[in-house]
Amino acid sequence: MPERGRLTFVLGGARSGKSSHAEARVTALPAPWTYIATAQAFDDEMAERIALHRARREAGWETVDAPLDLAGALEAVTDGRPVLVDCLTLWLSNHMLADHDVEGESRRLADLLARPRGPWFVVSNEVGLGIVPDNALARRFRDAAGRLNQKVAAVADDVLFMAAGLPMRVK
Amino acid sequence: MPERGRLTFVLGGARSGKSSHAEARVTALPAPWTYIATAQAFDDEMAERIALHRARREAGWETVDAPLDLAGALEAVTDGRPVLVDCLTLWLSNHMLADHDVEGESRRLADLLARPRGPWFVVSNEVGLGIVPDNALARRFRDAAGRLNQKVAAVADDVLFMAAGLPMRVK
Amino acid sequence: MPERGRLTFVLGGARSGKSSHAEARVTALPAPWTYIATAQAFDDEMAERIALHRARREAGWETVDAPLDLAGALEAVTDGRPVLVDCLTLWLSNHMLADHDVEGESRRLADLLARPRGPWFVVSNEVGLGIVPDNALARRFRDAAGRLNQKVAAVADDVLFMAAGLPMRVK
Repeated sequence: MPERGRLTFVLGGARSGKSSHAEARVTALPAPWTYIATAQAFDDEMAERIALHRARREAGWETVDAPLDLAGALEAVTDGRPVLVDCLTLWLSNHMLADHDVEGESRRLADLLARPRGPWFVVSNEVGLGIVPDNALARRFRDAAGRLNQKVAAVADDVLFMAAGLPMRVK
Repeated sequence: MPERGRLTFVLGGARSGKSSHAEARVTALPAPWTYIATAQAFDDEMAERIALHRARREAGWETVDAPLDLAGALEAVTDGRPVLVDCLTLWLSNHMLADHDVEGESRRLADLLARPRGPWFVVSNEVGLGIVPDNALARRFRDAAGRLNQKVAAVADDVLFMAAGLPMRVK
Repeated sequence: MPERGRLTFVLGGARSGKSSHAEARVTALPAPWTYIATAQAFDDEMAERIALHRARREAGWETVDAPLDLAGALEAVTDGRPVLVDCLTLWLSNHMLADHDVEGESRRLADLLARPRGPWFVVSNEVGLGIVPDNALARRFRDAAGRLNQKVAAVADDVLFMAAGLPMRVK
């Protein structure tokens, strides 16, 4: 069992450079690296995004799809290698659309992230800085995402808030 | 008349931990504390949020409801005790829905906040970091909220921007 | 040909004090100053905003309208004077509405901004920190704006993120 690793939480808006920054941080470490992708391709726009993400990554990456069982995917990495989770917001959205207990899932995940077994980088979207959404589901998602982000930030060693591709250190 | 107090302005998105952070800052000071709540329960969702907020607060708090007359509620606290105002955005929304002069009300409030009579903590939402809203009222609210936040930040001693429950110092 | 100038990128939400801050920074330098306005008045609300912006500016400003040819407007300033571009987001929106190649235009502009010929201040909106917009055009705009902001921040000497009228230094 390796020593406790280090959790870096990369938070930011859409197109804020979260994924690129986290990937650069991971690939600065020795390979192999594990990329845990939470995206599910529901439509062409999403499929295109996922393909672009994959194409951008260099060799040395093992990619694991975990739209729902993110905890399982993290527990399967046992050799202390660097891991990138991209991203929490999609994972949460997948659970919400499946009508799962998102608070329970969020707690379980945060408990696991509190004990990283290597250098773990977790990417998430900040979605709460616009006008209150019109529809109740969007408000519910916004609340759940904010609570999840707080839980993860609380157990992270480093928290970065991205703006225009640049990190601001929050913790 | 006590000496000039200190105004701390806690700004952030939905579920960014603004209220919890401000409450923790207040309860680190000697009781009694005054909680000035600006929320109005228009529907069940809102009523539930207000009840949750109240339930979370510990003993030692006096709660004052001030959906519109926030200035009056602040002026009524004369003994220099810590005060938490939660939150400016709802107060502004209440005035806008009542078709009041929000610029005038904002100016009057900022003038009062410039002379805190104790350690005052004021919570507000940042709502201007999303896509331009479709409807004109939401745009008008977004503009008014941004202008109010600027006025209060200008007279505050400390300004914090919350991200995932963590404060970034702005001033 | 003057020496390489300095590019300051002022990023922030609606009513975050971006323009006022950038204007104050420019007018702290010796006049004359050039204001490059990218706004187009499509309706009364917009026309009113443009008029307010102009009215607020003091003497000493030369105003140039460049809703599309921002590169040309920047290249026309050859004497090393301070320049304020307000704002990139509207320029991008104008190109997108005209169905132009926004990625190509963004690259061309970023290349030009990488070689400022004086103290240049460029204002832009952060629009990616709310809930995912319902309509595809808004999502496309949000993505293009985020990518443009990243390109400009990458070549800027100083990057500021505005909150409630106050700058946070990002770079």
